[in-house]
Amino acid sequence: MKKRISVIGAGECGPDVEAVAHRLGTLIAQNGFDLLCGGRMGVQRAACRGAKEAGGFTIGLLPGLDFTQANEFVDVPVVTGLGHMRNFLVVKNGAAAVAVEGGAGTLSEIGLAMKSGIPVVAIGRWSGVDGVRAARDADEAMDIVLSLVGR
Amino acid sequence: MKKRISVIGAGECGPDVEAVAHRLGTLIAQNGFDLLCGGRMGVQRAACRGAKEAGGFTIGLLPGLDFTQANEFVDVPVVTGLGHMRNFLVVKNGAAAVAVEGGAGTLSEIGLAMKSGIPVVAIGRWSGVDGVRAARDADEAMDIVLSLVGR
Amino acid sequence: MKKRISVIGAGECGPDVEAVAHRLGTLIAQNGFDLLCGGRMGVQRAACRGAKEAGGFTIGLLPGLDFTQANEFVDVPVVTGLGHMRNFLVVKNGAAAVAVEGGAGTLSEIGLAMKSGIPVVAIGRWSGVDGVRAARDADEAMDIVLSLVGR
Amino acid sequence: MKKRISVIGAGECGPDVEAVAHRLGTLIAQNGFDLLCGGRMGVQRAACRGAKEAGGFTIGLLPGLDFTQANEFVDVPVVTGLGHMRNFLVVKNGAAAVAVEGGAGTLSEIGLAMKSGIPVVAIGRWSGVDGVRAARDADEAMDIVLSLVGR
Repeated sequence: MKKRISVIGAGECGPDVEAVAHRLGTLIAQNGFDLLCGGRMGVQRAACRGAKEAGGFTIGLLPGLDFTQANEFVDVPVVTGLGHMRNFLVVKNGAAAVAVEGGAGTLSEIGLAMKSGIPVVAIGRWSGVDGVRAARDADEAMDIVLSLVGR
Repeated sequence: MKKRISVIGAGECGPDVEAVAHRLGTLIAQNGFDLLCGGRMGVQRAACRGAKEAGGFTIGLLPGLDFTQANEFVDVPVVTGLGHMRNFLVVKNGAAAVAVEGGAGTLSEIGLAMKSGIPVVAIGRWSGVDGVRAARDADEAMDIVLSLVGR
Repeated sequence: MKKRISVIGAGECGPDVEAVAHRLGTLIAQNGFDLLCGGRMGVQRAACRGAKEAGGFTIGLLPGLDFTQANEFVDVPVVTGLGHMRNFLVVKNGAAAVAVEGGAGTLSEIGLAMKSGIPVVAIGRWSGVDGVRAARDADEAMDIVLSLVGR
Repeated sequence: MKKRISVIGAGECGPDVEAVAHRLGTLIAQNGFDLLCGGRMGVQRAACRGAKEAGGFTIGLLPGLDFTQANEFVDVPVVTGLGHMRNFLVVKNGAAAVAVEGGAGTLSEIGLAMKSGIPVVAIGRWSGVDGVRAARDADEAMDIVLSLVGR
């Protein structure tokens, strides 16, 4: 089983944030990781797109029970019916998590990751949270991930 | 996304039941479906093995948080930490479920499937349960699945 | 903490089944147990009503996130957002479960209970399921419960 | 149904933090609320104790499946088997949440609460998180709670 990196972040975002997420997805694939996320829009979709364009593999753990919630760049969608509780599974199914901006849902994923021993790197909004490793951009985030979990 | 067939059944079983599960996995792959299961041993492992040997693809939704619980024929293991509640996800992530023998856990999956609109075919022990479609063997089970969900 | 008896069964039912559930709720309270259920309608509501009229205490574990789903005889409603997965919690939070008729959801609860070591008594439809103790009516069900878990 | 206030915070803590949690539990009961928490130790136990000594009522949503995990001041323990996912239920079953210090688990509860529309007041460590209302002590936290959800 390949190692997986979880991408978390804003469900809705502008082109600047999308570009960061896309770059992150590209790097995840290029470094030989599978990408894991919540399977939906915004940062999740941009990261999946980046991974797929670089030949990677993507898994999306959806909050509801409807497969059509998945964005078109998810290879393996899994419905959970857990609502916000699926946030735990998004981080726990990866070896490390990278947050790109995001709101309260992303904050919950950061807390759940740290609580269950998954290291967290954050770009933007939540990078100052106690226990989180801050990165300026996707490339630095990937460097930190590689230093934490290897290839 | 390919349609998925969920395989449920005994976590421990003898060679006769294993052979049925293996044949079922083979047929699932040969008919172009992905195989979904609880990712562990017995019927689940034999079915995954059959699917992999026939060139198929397998997803395992594990009850705990430990990836090493997955059998070696699972392509995409997902940890859920839900214990027996993950039984719901095993059936809900497929288009139909096929039970091969099994105990109370399998019975719960049959109930959860039927409750949430997933048709169930059963070989052996639970084939007489009200609402379940009975099959004598893996080949008949696959014929019924095909009649229910198409390819 | 008082011992709890879980009541499971049809979410919609006629007056005959309601009468059985009501009697069962009465007996649960009179024998000093708390009543635990899914908190909703049909058998659940009738049993809660019976328990409250006999001075008992009732807990309802709701499938959604909306407290107004609870029937008016639930003392402590708990929202779970787990959908059908909450069926596991309904049986696991009791010392024994009694089924009064019911459909596939009730069958799933029976399977989940037996899988996790909770004894099940059934009146009506599911009383012939392998591993379930059959009772003709609420009084016999309570006698069996008392023989299984004591007071 | 009485309104409930969720108390979240450190699972292990010293006497100063315990005193804050105890005072908070007292105020919750004196203001006519039920207290909801994760049912375990540290801040949870101290708050439950404060509530019970003031004549209040306490509900504990436990992470595992073992009732003996509950502290002795919990009136209604509910086992969830959800591990860290039960954090969502702890906040979602209340009208507002008050955090007293705490680590990553508490941070996850803060994120889950805000994501699902539950207002959060924090004393100590997490009071500076974006979106959280800061309070210096239990009395100020209760004043804020009252201004947010009424009696």
